[in-house]
Amino acid sequence: MSEQTSADSGPRAPALPSPHIQQEISNRIQERLSKIRHKIIVLSGKGGVGKSTVTANLAAVLAKRGYSVGVFDYDFHGPAMARMLGVLGQTLQAFPLGIFPATGVLGIKVVSLAFLLPDEKTPVIWRGPLKAKALVELMSSVVWGELDFLLFDLPPGTGDEALNIAQNIPEVDGAIVVTIPSVVSAVAVEKSAEFCKQLNIPLLGVVENMSYFKCPRCGLVAEIFGHGAGEKIAEEEGVRLLGRLPLDPDVARCMDEGKPVVICKPESESARALEEIVEALLDLLSVSR
Amino acid sequence: MSEQTSADSGPRAPALPSPHIQQEISNRIQERLSKIRHKIIVLSGKGGVGKSTVTANLAAVLAKRGYSVGVFDYDFHGPAMARMLGVLGQTLQAFPLGIFPATGVLGIKVVSLAFLLPDEKTPVIWRGPLKAKALVELMSSVVWGELDFLLFDLPPGTGDEALNIAQNIPEVDGAIVVTIPSVVSAVAVEKSAEFCKQLNIPLLGVVENMSYFKCPRCGLVAEIFGHGAGEKIAEEEGVRLLGRLPLDPDVARCMDEGKPVVICKPESESARALEEIVEALLDLLSVSR
Repeated sequence: MSEQTSADSGPRAPALPSPHIQQEISNRIQERLSKIRHKIIVLSGKGGVGKSTVTANLAAVLAKRGYSVGVFDYDFHGPAMARMLGVLGQTLQAFPLGIFPATGVLGIKVVSLAFLLPDEKTPVIWRGPLKAKALVELMSSVVWGELDFLLFDLPPGTGDEALNIAQNIPEVDGAIVVTIPSVVSAVAVEKSAEFCKQLNIPLLGVVENMSYFKCPRCGLVAEIFGHGAGEKIAEEEGVRLLGRLPLDPDVARCMDEGKPVVICKPESESARALEEIVEALLDLLSVSR
Repeated sequence: MSEQTSADSGPRAPALPSPHIQQEISNRIQERLSKIRHKIIVLSGKGGVGKSTVTANLAAVLAKRGYSVGVFDYDFHGPAMARMLGVLGQTLQAFPLGIFPATGVLGIKVVSLAFLLPDEKTPVIWRGPLKAKALVELMSSVVWGELDFLLFDLPPGTGDEALNIAQNIPEVDGAIVVTIPSVVSAVAVEKSAEFCKQLNIPLLGVVENMSYFKCPRCGLVAEIFGHGAGEKIAEEEGVRLLGRLPLDPDVARCMDEGKPVVICKPESESARALEEIVEALLDLLSVSR
Protein backbone atom coordinates (compact mmCIF):
# COMPACT_ATOMS: atom_id res chain seq x y z
CA MET A 1 0.00 0.00 0.00
CA SER A 2 2.68 2.46 1.03
CA GLU A 3 4.16 2.68 -2.46
CA GLN A 4 0.91 4.03 -3.80
CA THR A 5 0.81 7.09 -1.55
CA SER A 6 2.59 10.31 -2.33
CA ALA A 7 5.85 10.91 -0.56
CA ASP A 8 4.92 14.34 0.76
CA SER A 9 1.41 14.21 2.08
CA GLY A 10 0.83 10.50 2.55
CA PRO A 11 1.70 8.18 5.39
CA ARG A 12 5.08 6.51 5.68
CA ALA A 13 6.01 2.91 6.28
CA PRO A 14 6.83 2.01 9.88
CA ALA A 15 10.43 1.98 11.09
CA LEU A 16 11.27 -1.67 10.51
CA PRO A 17 14.75 -3.19 10.71
CA SER A 18 15.68 -2.90 7.02
CA PRO A 19 14.01 -2.64 3.61
CA HIS A 20 15.08 -6.20 2.91
CA ILE A 21 13.45 -7.67 6.03
CA GLN A 22 10.44 -5.49 5.48
CA GLN A 23 10.00 -6.89 1.98
CA GLU A 24 10.29 -10.41 3.32
CA ILE A 25 7.65 -9.76 6.00
CA SER A 26 5.41 -8.14 3.42
CA ASN A 27 5.75 -11.21 1.17
CA ARG A 28 4.91 -13.47 4.07
CA ILE A 29 1.79 -11.45 4.93
CA GLN A 30 0.72 -11.66 1.28
CA GLU A 31 1.17 -15.42 1.33
CA ARG A 32 -0.65 -15.84 4.64
CA LEU A 33 -3.65 -13.95 3.28
CA SER A 34 -3.57 -15.50 -0.18
CA LYS A 35 -6.47 -17.90 0.38
CA ILE A 36 -8.87 -15.30 1.73
CA ARG A 37 -11.55 -14.30 -0.72
CA HIS A 38 -12.65 -11.01 0.84
CA LYS A 39 -10.70 -8.73 3.14
CA ILE A 40 -12.67 -5.95 4.75
CA ILE A 41 -11.49 -3.42 7.27
CA VAL A 42 -13.82 -1.83 9.79
CA LEU A 43 -12.85 1.57 11.07
CA SER A 44 -14.10 4.65 12.85
CA GLY A 45 -12.82 8.15 13.37
CA LYS A 46 -13.26 7.87 17.11
CA GLY A 47 -13.54 5.19 19.74
CA GLY A 48 -16.65 3.96 21.45
CA VAL A 49 -18.95 4.11 18.45
CA GLY A 50 -19.39 0.35 18.59
CA LYS A 51 -16.93 -0.64 15.89
CA SER A 52 -16.04 -3.91 17.58
CA THR A 53 -19.70 -4.71 18.23
CA VAL A 54 -20.54 -4.11 14.58
CA THR A 55 -17.56 -6.20 13.42
CA ALA A 56 -18.40 -9.13 15.70
CA ASN A 57 -22.01 -9.09 14.60
CA LEU A 58 -21.23 -8.83 10.88
CA ALA A 59 -18.88 -11.79 11.29
CA ALA A 60 -21.62 -13.73 13.06
CA VAL A 61 -24.21 -12.98 10.36
CA LEU A 62 -21.78 -14.09 7.65
CA ALA A 63 -20.96 -17.26 9.60
CA LYS A 64 -24.68 -17.98 10.10
CA ARG A 65 -25.08 -17.86 6.34
CA GLY A 66 -22.45 -20.54 5.92
CA TYR A 67 -19.44 -18.45 4.98
CA SER A 68 -16.10 -19.19 6.59
CA VAL A 69 -15.12 -16.11 8.54
CA GLY A 70 -12.13 -14.76 10.45
CA VAL A 71 -11.73 -11.66 12.58
CA PHE A 72 -8.44 -9.93 13.24
CA ASP A 73 -8.99 -7.74 16.28
CA TYR A 74 -6.43 -4.99 16.69
CA ASP A 75 -7.84 -3.28 19.73
CA PHE A 76 -5.02 -3.15 22.22
CA HIS A 77 -7.01 -1.47 24.92
CA GLY A 78 -9.77 -3.89 25.68
CA PRO A 79 -10.80 -7.51 25.19
CA ALA A 80 -14.29 -6.65 23.95
CA MET A 81 -14.00 -8.63 20.74
CA ALA A 82 -12.64 -11.77 22.39
CA ARG A 83 -15.48 -11.59 24.88
CA MET A 84 -18.13 -11.04 22.23
CA LEU A 85 -17.00 -13.90 20.03
CA GLY A 86 -16.69 -16.26 22.99
CA VAL A 87 -12.92 -16.80 22.86
CA LEU A 88 -11.93 -15.00 26.05
CA GLY A 89 -9.53 -17.19 27.98
CA GLN A 90 -8.47 -19.07 24.86
CA THR A 91 -4.94 -18.65 23.61
CA LEU A 92 -3.30 -18.67 20.21
CA GLN A 93 -1.62 -21.96 19.29
CA ALA A 94 1.93 -21.47 18.05
CA PHE A 95 3.35 -24.22 15.83
CA PRO A 96 6.39 -24.36 13.57
CA LEU A 97 4.01 -23.52 10.72
CA GLY A 98 2.81 -20.38 12.41
CA ILE A 99 0.19 -19.12 14.83
CA PHE A 100 -3.29 -20.63 14.66
CA PRO A 101 -6.34 -18.51 15.48
CA ALA A 102 -8.74 -19.34 18.31
CA THR A 103 -12.17 -20.60 17.32
CA GLY A 104 -15.20 -18.73 18.58
CA VAL A 105 -18.97 -18.90 18.16
CA LEU A 106 -20.14 -20.43 14.85
CA GLY A 107 -16.58 -21.46 14.08
CA ILE A 108 -15.39 -17.89 13.57
CA LYS A 109 -11.59 -17.78 13.63
CA VAL A 110 -10.32 -15.05 15.91
CA VAL A 111 -6.96 -13.44 16.47
CA SER A 112 -7.21 -10.78 19.13
CA LEU A 113 -4.49 -8.70 20.66
CA ALA A 114 -6.29 -9.43 23.92
CA PHE A 115 -4.68 -12.89 23.73
CA LEU A 116 -1.28 -11.26 24.05
CA LEU A 117 -2.02 -9.50 27.31
CA PRO A 118 -1.08 -11.23 30.57
CA ASP A 119 -4.55 -10.56 31.98
CA GLU A 120 -7.58 -8.45 31.27
CA LYS A 121 -6.57 -5.62 33.56
CA THR A 122 -2.99 -5.03 32.50
CA PRO A 123 -2.71 -1.82 30.53
CA VAL A 124 -0.73 -2.04 27.34
CA ILE A 125 1.88 0.62 27.88
CA TRP A 126 3.88 -0.32 24.84
CA ARG A 127 6.01 2.11 22.99
CA GLY A 128 5.09 2.84 19.38
CA PRO A 129 7.93 1.26 17.40
CA LEU A 130 7.83 -1.92 19.48
CA LYS A 131 4.11 -2.17 19.00
CA ALA A 132 4.30 -1.53 15.25
CA LYS A 133 6.92 -4.22 14.89
CA ALA A 134 4.97 -6.72 16.97
CA LEU A 135 1.80 -6.08 14.98
CA VAL A 136 3.42 -6.60 11.61
CA GLU A 137 5.20 -9.71 12.86
CA LEU A 138 1.93 -11.09 14.14
CA MET A 139 0.24 -10.39 10.80
CA SER A 140 2.93 -12.34 9.02
CA SER A 141 2.58 -15.35 11.32
CA VAL A 142 -1.13 -16.17 11.46
CA VAL A 143 -2.26 -19.29 9.64
CA TRP A 144 -5.76 -18.35 8.52
CA GLY A 145 -6.02 -20.97 5.84
CA GLU A 146 -8.92 -20.64 3.43
CA LEU A 147 -11.63 -18.11 4.33
CA ASP A 148 -14.51 -16.41 2.58
CA PHE A 149 -14.20 -13.29 4.71
CA LEU A 150 -11.58 -11.80 6.97
CA LEU A 151 -12.66 -8.72 8.91
CA PHE A 152 -10.00 -6.44 10.33
CA ASP A 153 -11.20 -4.50 13.35
CA LEU A 154 -8.77 -1.59 13.34
CA PRO A 155 -7.94 0.50 16.40
CA PRO A 156 -10.11 3.62 16.59
CA GLY A 157 -8.92 6.79 14.93
CA THR A 158 -6.55 7.53 12.11
CA GLY A 159 -3.32 7.48 14.06
CA ASP A 160 -0.20 5.35 13.90
CA GLU A 161 -1.79 2.11 14.89
CA ALA A 162 -4.59 2.16 12.35
CA LEU A 163 -2.23 3.41 9.67
CA ASN A 164 0.39 0.82 10.35
CA ILE A 165 -2.07 -2.02 10.08
CA ALA A 166 -4.03 -0.77 7.11
CA GLN A 167 -0.96 -0.24 4.95
CA ASN A 168 0.21 -3.77 5.67
CA ILE A 169 -2.92 -5.53 4.45
CA PRO A 170 -2.58 -6.39 0.77
CA GLU A 171 -5.54 -6.14 -1.62
CA VAL A 172 -8.23 -4.98 0.75
CA ASP A 173 -11.71 -5.21 -0.79
CA GLY A 174 -12.71 -2.12 1.06
CA ALA A 175 -13.54 -0.42 4.31
CA ILE A 176 -16.68 0.08 6.34
CA VAL A 177 -16.82 3.15 8.53
CA VAL A 178 -18.87 3.04 11.73
CA THR A 179 -20.25 6.24 13.19
CA ILE A 180 -22.79 7.44 15.73
CA PRO A 181 -25.37 10.03 14.59
CA SER A 182 -24.04 13.21 16.23
CA VAL A 183 -22.45 15.97 14.17
CA VAL A 184 -19.35 16.00 16.37
CA SER A 185 -18.79 12.32 15.62
CA ALA A 186 -19.38 12.81 11.93
CA VAL A 187 -16.41 15.12 11.76
CA ALA A 188 -14.18 12.53 13.39
CA VAL A 189 -15.44 9.79 11.09
CA GLU A 190 -14.96 11.83 7.94
CA LYS A 191 -11.29 11.58 8.74
CA SER A 192 -11.53 7.84 8.28
CA ALA A 193 -12.91 8.36 4.81
CA GLU A 194 -10.00 10.66 4.09
CA PHE A 195 -7.64 8.05 5.53
CA CYS A 196 -9.02 5.45 3.11
CA LYS A 197 -8.46 7.75 0.16
CA GLN A 198 -4.88 8.36 1.18
CA LEU A 199 -4.27 4.62 1.45
CA ASN A 200 -6.19 3.82 -1.76
CA ILE A 201 -8.70 1.64 0.06
CA PRO A 202 -12.22 1.76 -1.42
CA LEU A 203 -14.86 2.96 1.01
CA LEU A 204 -17.74 0.47 0.82
CA GLY A 205 -20.19 2.29 3.01
CA VAL A 206 -21.19 3.73 6.35
CA VAL A 207 -22.89 2.02 9.28
CA GLU A 208 -24.64 4.36 11.70
CA ASN A 209 -24.66 2.80 15.14
CA MET A 210 -26.65 3.89 18.22
CA SER A 211 -29.01 5.71 15.86
CA TYR A 212 -32.07 5.77 18.08
CA PHE A 213 -33.66 4.19 21.13
CA LYS A 214 -37.18 2.87 20.96
CA CYS A 215 -38.80 2.84 24.41
CA PRO A 216 -39.93 -0.74 25.02
CA ARG A 217 -42.89 0.48 27.11
CA CYS A 218 -44.39 3.37 25.14
CA GLY A 219 -42.70 3.08 21.74
CA LEU A 220 -41.24 6.61 21.83
CA VAL A 221 -38.24 6.91 19.52
CA ALA A 222 -35.48 9.02 21.08
CA GLU A 223 -32.45 10.11 19.07
CA ILE A 224 -30.13 10.20 22.05
CA PHE A 225 -26.91 10.83 20.14
CA GLY A 226 -28.29 13.33 17.66
CA HIS A 227 -29.27 12.80 14.08
CA GLY A 228 -28.01 12.40 10.56
CA ALA A 229 -24.26 11.84 10.66
CA GLY A 230 -24.46 8.51 8.81
CA GLU A 231 -26.52 9.95 5.98
CA LYS A 232 -24.37 13.06 5.84
CA ILE A 233 -21.10 11.14 5.54
CA ALA A 234 -22.48 8.66 3.05
CA GLU A 235 -23.78 11.49 0.88
CA GLU A 236 -20.57 13.50 1.09
CA GLU A 237 -18.44 10.51 0.23
CA GLY A 238 -20.78 9.21 -2.45
CA VAL A 239 -21.20 5.84 -0.78
CA ARG A 240 -24.09 3.87 0.65
CA LEU A 241 -25.46 4.19 4.15
CA LEU A 242 -25.40 0.43 4.76
CA GLY A 243 -27.73 0.62 7.72
CA ARG A 244 -28.79 2.26 10.96
CA LEU A 245 -28.56 0.25 14.17
CA PRO A 246 -30.71 1.03 17.21
CA LEU A 247 -29.47 1.55 20.75
CA ASP A 248 -30.42 -1.79 22.22
CA PRO A 249 -29.85 -2.99 25.79
CA ASP A 250 -29.72 -6.55 24.43
CA VAL A 251 -26.53 -5.72 22.54
CA ALA A 252 -24.62 -4.97 25.77
CA ARG A 253 -26.35 -7.84 27.60
CA CYS A 254 -25.48 -10.41 24.92
CA MET A 255 -21.95 -9.05 24.72
CA ASP A 256 -21.45 -9.38 28.46
CA GLU A 257 -22.64 -12.99 28.09
CA GLY A 258 -20.08 -13.62 25.38
CA LYS A 259 -22.38 -13.64 22.36
CA PRO A 260 -23.13 -11.30 19.47
CA VAL A 261 -26.74 -10.08 19.49
CA VAL A 262 -27.48 -11.74 16.12
CA ILE A 263 -26.99 -15.09 17.83
CA CYS A 264 -28.50 -14.49 21.25
CA LYS A 265 -31.43 -12.34 20.07
CA PRO A 266 -31.85 -13.23 16.36
CA GLU A 267 -35.36 -11.75 16.18
CA SER A 268 -34.41 -8.35 17.59
CA GLU A 269 -34.52 -5.14 15.56
CA SER A 270 -30.73 -4.96 15.94
CA ALA A 271 -30.25 -8.43 14.48
CA ARG A 272 -32.56 -7.67 11.55
CA ALA A 273 -30.70 -4.42 10.81
CA LEU A 274 -27.39 -6.28 10.89
CA GLU A 275 -28.72 -8.90 8.46
CA GLU A 276 -29.65 -6.07 6.08
CA ILE A 277 -26.20 -4.56 6.34
CA VAL A 278 -24.68 -7.90 5.37
CA GLU A 279 -27.11 -8.11 2.41
CA ALA A 280 -25.94 -4.69 1.24
CA LEU A 281 -22.32 -5.69 1.72
CA LEU A 282 -22.68 -8.90 -0.28
CA ASP A 283 -24.32 -6.86 -3.04
CA LEU A 284 -21.45 -4.39 -3.08
CA LEU A 285 -18.89 -7.18 -3.23
CA SER A 286 -20.97 -9.02 -5.88
CA VAL A 287 -20.87 -12.18 -3.82
CA SER A 288 -23.14 -14.83 -5.32
CA ARG A 289 -25.43 -16.42 -2.74
CA MET B 1 7.11 11.13 36.80
CA SER B 2 9.25 8.72 34.80
CA GLU B 3 11.92 8.57 37.49
CA GLN B 4 9.42 7.18 39.94
CA THR B 5 8.54 4.13 37.90
CA SER B 6 10.53 0.94 37.92
CA ALA B 7 12.87 0.40 35.01
CA ASP B 8 11.58 -3.05 34.16
CA SER B 9 7.83 -3.02 34.31
CA GLY B 10 7.01 0.67 34.13
CA PRO B 11 6.70 3.02 31.22
CA ARG B 12 9.71 4.70 29.66
CA ALA B 13 10.30 8.32 28.77
CA PRO B 14 9.70 9.24 25.13
CA ALA B 15 12.57 9.35 22.67
CA LEU B 16 13.55 13.00 22.96
CA PRO B 17 16.69 14.55 21.49
CA SER B 18 18.93 14.25 24.57
CA PRO B 19 18.69 13.96 28.36
CA HIS B 20 19.92 17.55 28.62
CA ILE B 21 17.23 19.00 26.35
CA GLN B 22 14.65 16.78 27.98
CA GLN B 23 15.52 18.19 31.39
CA GLU B 24 15.25 21.71 30.05
CA ILE B 25 11.82 21.02 28.55
CA SER B 26 10.69 19.38 31.77
CA ASN B 27 11.82 22.45 33.75
CA ARG B 28 9.93 24.69 31.37
CA ILE B 29 6.75 22.64 31.74
CA GLN B 30 7.10 22.86 35.52
CA GLU B 31 7.45 26.63 35.30
CA ARG B 32 4.52 27.01 32.91
CA LEU B 33 2.27 25.10 35.27
CA SER B 34 3.61 26.64 38.49
CA LYS B 35 0.69 29.02 39.05
CA ILE B 36 -2.01 26.39 38.67
CA ARG B 37 -3.59 25.37 41.95
CA HIS B 38 -5.14 22.07 40.88
CA LYS B 39 -4.16 19.80 38.01
CA ILE B 40 -6.57 17.01 37.24
CA ILE B 41 -6.36 14.48 34.46
CA VAL B 42 -9.44 12.85 32.98
CA LEU B 43 -8.97 9.46 31.42
CA SER B 44 -10.76 6.35 30.24
CA GLY B 45 -9.75 2.87 29.27
CA LYS B 46 -11.54 3.13 25.96
CA GLY B 47 -12.78 5.82 23.64
CA GLY B 48 -16.33 7.02 23.19
CA VAL B 49 -17.35 6.84 26.84
CA GLY B 50 -17.87 10.59 26.88
CA LYS B 51 -14.58 11.60 28.48
CA SER B 52 -14.43 14.89 26.57
CA THR B 53 -18.06 15.65 27.32
CA VAL B 54 -17.47 15.06 31.03
CA THR B 55 -14.31 17.18 31.01
CA ALA B 56 -15.97 20.09 29.19
CA ASN B 57 -18.91 20.01 31.57
CA LEU B 58 -16.81 19.78 34.72
CA ALA B 59 -14.81 22.75 33.46
CA ALA B 60 -18.04 24.65 32.84
CA VAL B 61 -19.44 23.88 36.31
CA LEU B 62 -16.18 25.03 37.93
CA ALA B 63 -16.18 28.21 35.83
CA LYS B 64 -19.82 28.90 36.73
CA ARG B 65 -18.79 28.79 40.38
CA GLY B 66 -16.22 31.49 39.80
CA TYR B 67 -13.07 29.44 39.55
CA SER B 68 -10.56 30.21 36.82
CA VAL B 69 -10.34 27.13 34.64
CA GLY B 70 -8.25 25.81 31.78
CA VAL B 71 -8.64 22.71 29.63
CA PHE B 72 -5.81 21.01 27.80
CA ASP B 73 -7.41 18.80 25.17
CA TYR B 74 -5.16 16.09 23.83
CA ASP B 75 -7.57 14.35 21.54
CA PHE B 76 -5.87 14.25 18.17
CA HIS B 77 -8.68 12.53 16.41
CA GLY B 78 -11.57 14.91 16.74
CA PRO B 79 -12.38 18.51 17.56
CA ALA B 80 -15.16 17.63 20.01
CA MET B 81 -13.74 19.62 22.90
CA ALA B 82 -13.11 22.77 20.86
CA ARG B 83 -16.66 22.55 19.59
CA MET B 84 -18.15 21.98 23.03
CA LEU B 85 -16.33 24.85 24.66
CA GLY B 86 -17.14 27.21 21.80
CA VAL B 87 -13.62 27.80 20.52
CA LEU B 88 -13.85 26.01 17.19
CA GLY B 89 -12.36 28.24 14.52
CA GLN B 90 -10.24 30.13 17.02
CA THR B 91 -6.49 29.75 16.87
CA LEU B 92 -3.72 29.79 19.43
CA GLN B 93 -1.84 33.09 19.67
CA ALA B 94 1.92 32.65 19.50
CA PHE B 95 4.03 35.43 21.04
CA PRO B 96 7.70 35.61 22.02
CA LEU B 97 6.55 34.73 25.56
CA GLY B 98 4.84 31.56 24.42
CA ILE B 99 1.53 30.27 23.13
CA PHE B 100 -1.66 31.75 24.58
CA PRO B 101 -4.79 29.60 24.95
CA ALA B 102 -8.05 30.40 23.21
CA THR B 103 -10.90 31.62 25.41
CA GLY B 104 -14.15 29.71 25.36
CA VAL B 105 -17.50 29.84 27.15
CA LEU B 106 -17.38 31.37 30.65
CA GLY B 107 -13.79 32.45 30.06
CA ILE B 108 -12.46 28.89 30.08
CA LYS B 109 -8.96 28.81 28.61
CA VAL B 110 -8.60 26.10 26.01
CA VAL B 111 -5.65 24.53 24.25
CA SER B 112 -6.85 21.88 21.87
CA LEU B 113 -4.88 19.80 19.45
CA ALA B 114 -7.76 20.52 17.08
CA PHE B 115 -6.22 23.98 16.67
CA LEU B 116 -3.17 22.41 15.11
CA LEU B 117 -5.05 20.65 12.34
CA PRO B 118 -5.41 22.37 8.98
CA ASP B 119 -9.14 21.66 8.96
CA GLU B 120 -11.67 19.51 10.78
CA LYS B 121 -11.56 16.70 8.25
CA THR B 122 -7.83 16.14 7.91
CA PRO B 123 -6.80 12.93 9.59
CA VAL B 124 -3.79 13.16 11.83
CA ILE B 125 -1.54 10.54 10.34
CA TRP B 126 1.43 11.50 12.44
CA ARG B 127 4.13 9.10 13.34
CA GLY B 128 4.59 8.38 17.05
CA PRO B 129 7.96 9.97 17.85
CA LEU B 130 7.07 13.15 15.94
CA LYS B 131 3.79 13.36 17.79
CA ALA B 132 5.36 12.74 21.20
CA LYS B 133 7.90 15.45 20.56
CA ALA B 134 5.27 17.92 19.35
CA LEU B 135 3.08 17.26 22.39
CA VAL B 136 5.83 17.80 24.92
CA GLU B 137 6.99 20.91 23.09
CA LEU B 138 3.46 22.26 23.12
CA MET B 139 3.13 21.55 26.84
CA SER B 140 6.27 23.53 27.51
CA SER B 141 5.07 26.53 25.51
CA VAL B 142 1.57 27.32 26.75
CA VAL B 143 1.17 30.44 28.86
CA TRP B 144 -1.66 29.45 31.18
CA GLY B 145 -0.93 32.09 33.80
CA GLU B 146 -2.76 31.73 37.12
CA LEU B 147 -5.57 29.18 37.27
CA ASP B 148 -7.58 27.45 39.97
CA PHE B 149 -8.05 24.34 37.86
CA LEU B 150 -6.43 22.87 34.79
CA LEU B 151 -8.11 19.76 33.38
CA PHE B 152 -6.14 17.51 31.08
CA ASP B 153 -8.35 15.56 28.71
CA LEU B 154 -6.06 12.67 27.81
CA PRO B 155 -6.40 10.56 24.67
CA PRO B 156 -8.45 7.41 25.29
CA GLY B 157 -6.72 4.27 26.39
CA THR B 158 -3.45 3.58 28.12
CA GLY B 159 -1.19 3.66 25.09
CA ASP B 160 1.75 5.82 24.11
CA GLU B 161 -0.14 9.04 23.78
CA ALA B 162 -1.77 8.97 27.19
CA LEU B 163 1.43 7.73 28.79
CA ASN B 164 3.58 10.35 27.20
CA ILE B 165 1.36 13.17 28.35
CA ALA B 166 0.66 11.90 31.86
CA GLN B 167 4.30 11.41 32.71
CA ASN B 168 5.11 14.95 31.62
CA ILE B 169 2.61 16.68 33.90
CA PRO B 170 4.28 17.54 37.21
CA GLU B 171 2.42 17.28 40.52
CA VAL B 172 -0.94 16.08 39.30
CA ASP B 173 -3.59 16.29 42.04
CA GLY B 174 -5.19 13.18 40.68
CA ALA B 175 -7.13 11.47 37.96
CA ILE B 176 -10.80 10.93 37.24
CA VAL B 177 -11.71 7.85 35.26
CA VAL B 178 -14.79 7.93 33.04
CA THR B 179 -16.60 4.71 32.19
CA ILE B 180 -19.88 3.47 30.79
CA PRO B 181 -21.82 0.86 32.79
CA SER B 182 -21.17 -2.32 30.75
CA VAL B 183 -18.89 -5.05 32.06
CA VAL B 184 -16.84 -5.05 28.87
CA SER B 185 -16.08 -1.37 29.38
CA ALA B 186 -15.24 -1.86 33.04
CA VAL B 187 -12.39 -4.14 32.09
CA ALA B 188 -10.95 -1.52 29.77
CA VAL B 189 -11.31 1.20 32.36
CA GLU B 190 -9.67 -0.82 35.12
CA LYS B 191 -6.56 -0.56 33.01
CA SER B 192 -6.65 3.19 33.53
CA ALA B 193 -6.65 2.68 37.27
CA GLU B 194 -3.64 0.39 36.85
CA PHE B 195 -2.03 3.02 34.62
CA CYS B 196 -2.44 5.64 37.40
CA LYS B 197 -0.80 3.35 39.92
CA GLN B 198 2.15 2.77 37.64
CA LEU B 199 2.58 6.51 37.16
CA ASN B 200 1.98 7.31 40.85
CA ILE B 201 -1.04 9.46 40.09
CA PRO B 202 -3.75 9.32 42.78
CA LEU B 203 -7.10 8.08 41.50
CA LEU B 204 -9.73 10.53 42.75
CA GLY B 205 -12.80 8.67 41.63
CA VAL B 206 -14.95 7.23 38.90
CA VAL B 207 -17.63 8.91 36.80
CA GLU B 208 -20.12 6.54 35.21
CA ASN B 209 -21.45 8.09 32.02
CA MET B 210 -24.43 6.98 29.91
CA SER B 211 -25.72 5.15 32.97
CA TYR B 212 -29.40 5.04 32.03
CA PHE B 213 -32.01 6.60 29.79
CA LYS B 214 -35.24 7.88 31.24
CA CYS B 215 -38.01 7.86 28.64
CA PRO B 216 -39.33 11.44 28.50
CA ARG B 217 -42.85 10.18 27.67
CA CYS B 218 -43.49 7.28 30.06
CA GLY B 219 -40.65 7.59 32.57
CA LEU B 220 -39.28 4.08 31.94
CA VAL B 221 -35.64 3.84 32.97
CA ALA B 222 -33.62 1.76 30.50
CA GLU B 223 -30.05 0.71 31.24
CA ILE B 224 -29.01 0.62 27.61
CA PHE B 225 -25.30 0.03 28.20
CA GLY B 226 -25.65 -2.48 31.01
CA HIS B 227 -25.24 -1.94 34.70
CA GLY B 228 -22.77 -1.51 37.50
CA ALA B 229 -19.31 -0.92 36.02
CA GLY B 230 -18.86 2.42 37.81
CA GLU B 231 -19.72 0.96 41.21
CA LYS B 232 -17.63 -2.13 40.53
CA ILE B 233 -14.50 -0.19 39.59
CA ALA B 234 -14.89 2.30 42.45
CA GLU B 235 -15.25 -0.55 44.92
CA GLU B 236 -12.33 -2.52 43.54
CA GLU B 237 -10.07 0.49 43.54
CA GLY B 238 -11.26 1.77 46.90
CA VAL B 239 -12.30 5.14 45.51
CA ARG B 240 -15.54 7.08 45.25
CA LEU B 241 -18.10 6.73 42.51
CA LEU B 242 -18.30 10.47 41.93
CA GLY B 243 -21.55 10.27 40.04
CA ARG B 244 -23.72 8.61 37.42
CA LEU B 245 -24.74 10.61 34.37
CA PRO B 246 -27.84 9.79 32.35
CA LEU B 247 -27.99 9.27 28.60
CA ASP B 248 -29.45 12.59 27.61
CA PRO B 249 -30.26 13.78 24.07
CA ASP B 250 -29.70 17.35 25.29
CA VAL B 251 -26.01 16.58 25.84
CA ALA B 252 -25.43 15.83 22.14
CA ARG B 253 -27.74 18.66 21.08
CA CYS B 254 -25.96 21.26 23.25
CA MET B 255 -22.59 19.94 22.13
CA ASP B 256 -23.52 20.26 18.47
CA GLU B 257 -24.53 23.86 19.26
CA GLY B 258 -21.15 24.51 20.84
CA LYS B 259 -22.18 24.54 24.50
CA PRO B 260 -21.78 22.20 27.44
CA VAL B 261 -25.12 20.95 28.78
CA VAL B 262 -24.58 22.61 32.18
CA ILE B 263 -24.80 25.96 30.41
CA CYS B 264 -27.46 25.32 27.77
CA LYS B 265 -29.73 23.15 29.96
CA PRO B 266 -28.75 24.03 33.55
CA GLU B 267 -31.94 22.53 35.01
CA SER B 268 -31.53 19.12 33.36
CA GLU B 269 -30.84 15.92 35.29
CA SER B 270 -27.46 15.79 33.53
CA ALA B 271 -26.52 19.26 34.71
CA ARG B 272 -27.57 18.49 38.28
CA ALA B 273 -25.53 15.28 38.29
CA LEU B 274 -22.50 17.16 36.99
CA GLU B 275 -22.87 19.77 39.74
CA GLU B 276 -22.83 16.95 42.29
CA ILE B 277 -19.69 15.46 40.76
CA VAL B 278 -17.97 18.82 41.11
CA GLU B 279 -19.12 19.03 44.75
CA ALA B 280 -17.57 15.62 45.41
CA LEU B 281 -14.40 16.64 43.62
CA LEU B 282 -14.03 19.87 45.62
CA ASP B 283 -14.50 17.82 48.78
CA LEU B 284 -11.81 15.38 47.76
CA LEU B 285 -9.40 18.19 46.96
CA SER B 286 -10.37 20.02 50.17
CA VAL B 287 -11.08 23.19 48.25
CA SER B 288 -12.68 25.81 50.48
CA ARG B 289 -15.77 27.34 48.94
